[in-house]
Amino acid sequence: MMQERARQILSPSARSDVPPFMVMDVIAAATRVEAAGHHVVHMEVGQPAAPAPRTAIEAARKALDGPLRYTEALGFTSLRARIARHYGEAYKVDLDPARVIVTTGSSAGFILSFLAMFEPGDRVGIANPGYPPYRHILKALGCEPVLIETNEATRWAVTPDAVMAVHRQKPLAGLLVASPANPTGTMMRPAALADLIAMADAENIRFISDEIYHGLDYAFPAETALRLSSNALVINSFSKYFCMTGWRIGWIVAPEPLVRPIERLQGNLAISVPTLSQIAAEAAFDGRNEMDGVKYGYEDNRQILIDGLPKAGLDKFLPVDGAFYLYANVSRFSDDSYDFAKRMLEEAHVAATPGVDFDPIDGRHYLRFCYAQSQADMHAAVQRIGEWLAKR
Amino acid sequence: MMQERARQILSPSARSDVPPFMVMDVIAAATRVEAAGHHVVHMEVGQPAAPAPRTAIEAARKALDGPLRYTEALGFTSLRARIARHYGEAYKVDLDPARVIVTTGSSAGFILSFLAMFEPGDRVGIANPGYPPYRHILKALGCEPVLIETNEATRWAVTPDAVMAVHRQKPLAGLLVASPANPTGTMMRPAALADLIAMADAENIRFISDEIYHGLDYAFPAETALRLSSNALVINSFSKYFCMTGWRIGWIVAPEPLVRPIERLQGNLAISVPTLSQIAAEAAFDGRNEMDGVKYGYEDNRQILIDGLPKAGLDKFLPVDGAFYLYANVSRFSDDSYDFAKRMLEEAHVAATPGVDFDPIDGRHYLRFCYAQSQADMHAAVQRIGEWLAKR
Repeated sequence: MMQERARQILSPSARSDVPPFMVMDVIAAATRVEAAGHHVVHMEVGQPAAPAPRTAIEAARKALDGPLRYTEALGFTSLRARIARHYGEAYKVDLDPARVIVTTGSSAGFILSFLAMFEPGDRVGIANPGYPPYRHILKALGCEPVLIETNEATRWAVTPDAVMAVHRQKPLAGLLVASPANPTGTMMRPAALADLIAMADAENIRFISDEIYHGLDYAFPAETALRLSSNALVINSFSKYFCMTGWRIGWIVAPEPLVRPIERLQGNLAISVPTLSQIAAEAAFDGRNEMDGVKYGYEDNRQILIDGLPKAGLDKFLPVDGAFYLYANVSRFSDDSYDFAKRMLEEAHVAATPGVDFDPIDGRHYLRFCYAQSQADMHAAVQRIGEWLAKR
Repeated sequence: MMQERARQILSPSARSDVPPFMVMDVIAAATRVEAAGHHVVHMEVGQPAAPAPRTAIEAARKALDGPLRYTEALGFTSLRARIARHYGEAYKVDLDPARVIVTTGSSAGFILSFLAMFEPGDRVGIANPGYPPYRHILKALGCEPVLIETNEATRWAVTPDAVMAVHRQKPLAGLLVASPANPTGTMMRPAALADLIAMADAENIRFISDEIYHGLDYAFPAETALRLSSNALVINSFSKYFCMTGWRIGWIVAPEPLVRPIERLQGNLAISVPTLSQIAAEAAFDGRNEMDGVKYGYEDNRQILIDGLPKAGLDKFLPVDGAFYLYANVSRFSDDSYDFAKRMLEEAHVAATPGVDFDPIDGRHYLRFCYAQSQADMHAAVQRIGEWLAKR
């Protein structure tokens, strides 16, 4: 009786029953392989090997001498102005800094945006495959993630037709799209993004554009949703292009009516965003030359994989347009990409993420490779995978 | 028609309709008074004037040279172990580091705990007056905050009787208590806390102990809920005792069955906690001597106010046990503490927070003074308030 009560009082809520990132299991397994004395090529985690821009690190170093207090809930005024200026520089879009909200990574950007835009029970469309926390954050906040299938005919992009198909069954309150996308690395053409946003506006579907991989576009320039609609909400981060994952700093550009609600939410949910990270982020914009150098490295890595993986035996993958991901179909070798990834790690010492993390439906046929590591690692990966597959 | 549609698509969700912190209005007003050339004594914001421990700053400075990547979702193992060791040192409690979860300030601690422990619609008891984000985070996450009145007879602490009174009307799923408390600065005797937790355990009410002001206890040593029940969840932070507000770093000690659900939530909702802040926090424990010096300063400030405010005319306030707050009843002078605070700022140049932020029922009779500033400021505050009230 007492034990039963104790179990009850300690049992987690139903809404906390979200799956873990499987990539975490891969990381743990890779650590074991390394502990056994092997060199592992890490292509499982979606983060740059390079550090933050030197300008950002120096600004942080200087700021350590001063007080690091709470800031305004929306973030430092100077950082918000600098981000707004970035839209002029990168996209020729004139942006009012009042619409910029600094966040603790894009992670907090999702939480704040979902809370401000959606009621419990609201249906929100997301691409399948896609970034797993989209599903899990929406679920934890009481919304219903609705997977929208993508396919080769549309370059694995969400289309108006695909959205309308689910919207007609039961209306969507929102639609969240990323270009460049994780895990696929594919991008939407500006015209395709424009069509999708126009449809969302016409159907009263709130549109969120996850632009975290902007700046990392190789096939053609990525388009910002800000140019296409004044209703769209944009989420971005310093984690990827600026190599600042561990700093947990990002931003939202919100339609004006949502700024004050998000400010109130952030004041209550976070008080403010890490102060040192805000200072470093503002200075990061002065390090774009250095970061462009990092990006050129990714382009080289991308070419090594595009040339090398087919020769190694992995010849089916999605267009490698942007971000730093290659999404390879391994169905020729296995119907269980989790098991395939496990054996590739143990036998070839190359770590990649099984697609089941990103796609509950067809992910068992795919692996995600991150190419944000060194060129030497890319060559090693191609060679090891080739030798391993030849032996099978 | 188009305008109507645009309004609809951009209207914020009902659940984002949480009130702002009124203290933010006070800060803005104080900035205007300073811009007019006056010196303002800032007693409105609940944060230390002192910087983080030198040990923390030095550790951060060194870490800037290395990569700052994502960490494990639960936080660095070494930091979790150091926090666990702290419970042995400070409370003689033996704590398994596996139960420690590093969080982005206590703010993230609340979000993660509420999501892991409560379902939408769950009723959670909190003290009135209390920290406003308790109410607003619970509401944003679909829970119902239930105010539990406190009074002089119980030193403004939540009692088993007061909890049972609301629990009998409609069961509570949870109870959240802070000692030392914000805004009142009052503390619960260890026996009173033990009684309350025993009642919660017996009634199957999940207990959360907000121990963010531990280490800042003057009247008697604060007791941790960890000693009193293995069911209690503890939330703490480096913001107050360790003066690390802008670093946004804190922790949870969770009952074992809740660790994995919170880990999964954090992996999805935040990925990980700011890396530099984690490194600095671990080193902060080596700066306890320096922080004890800061605490002694608060004790002196506390005495200046306890002695000086009654002579200045403010002679009704709650026991000044801990934290760095004094909660003064100003009903002798005004039935509108918001207006009283506004005039005190404009005419006496002392900024304090109106109680309506913390207590929707009786807050209009109270002001919260934060005494985490310099001794000179405390003397100035007492003198200015005295002269101002004498003139009224």
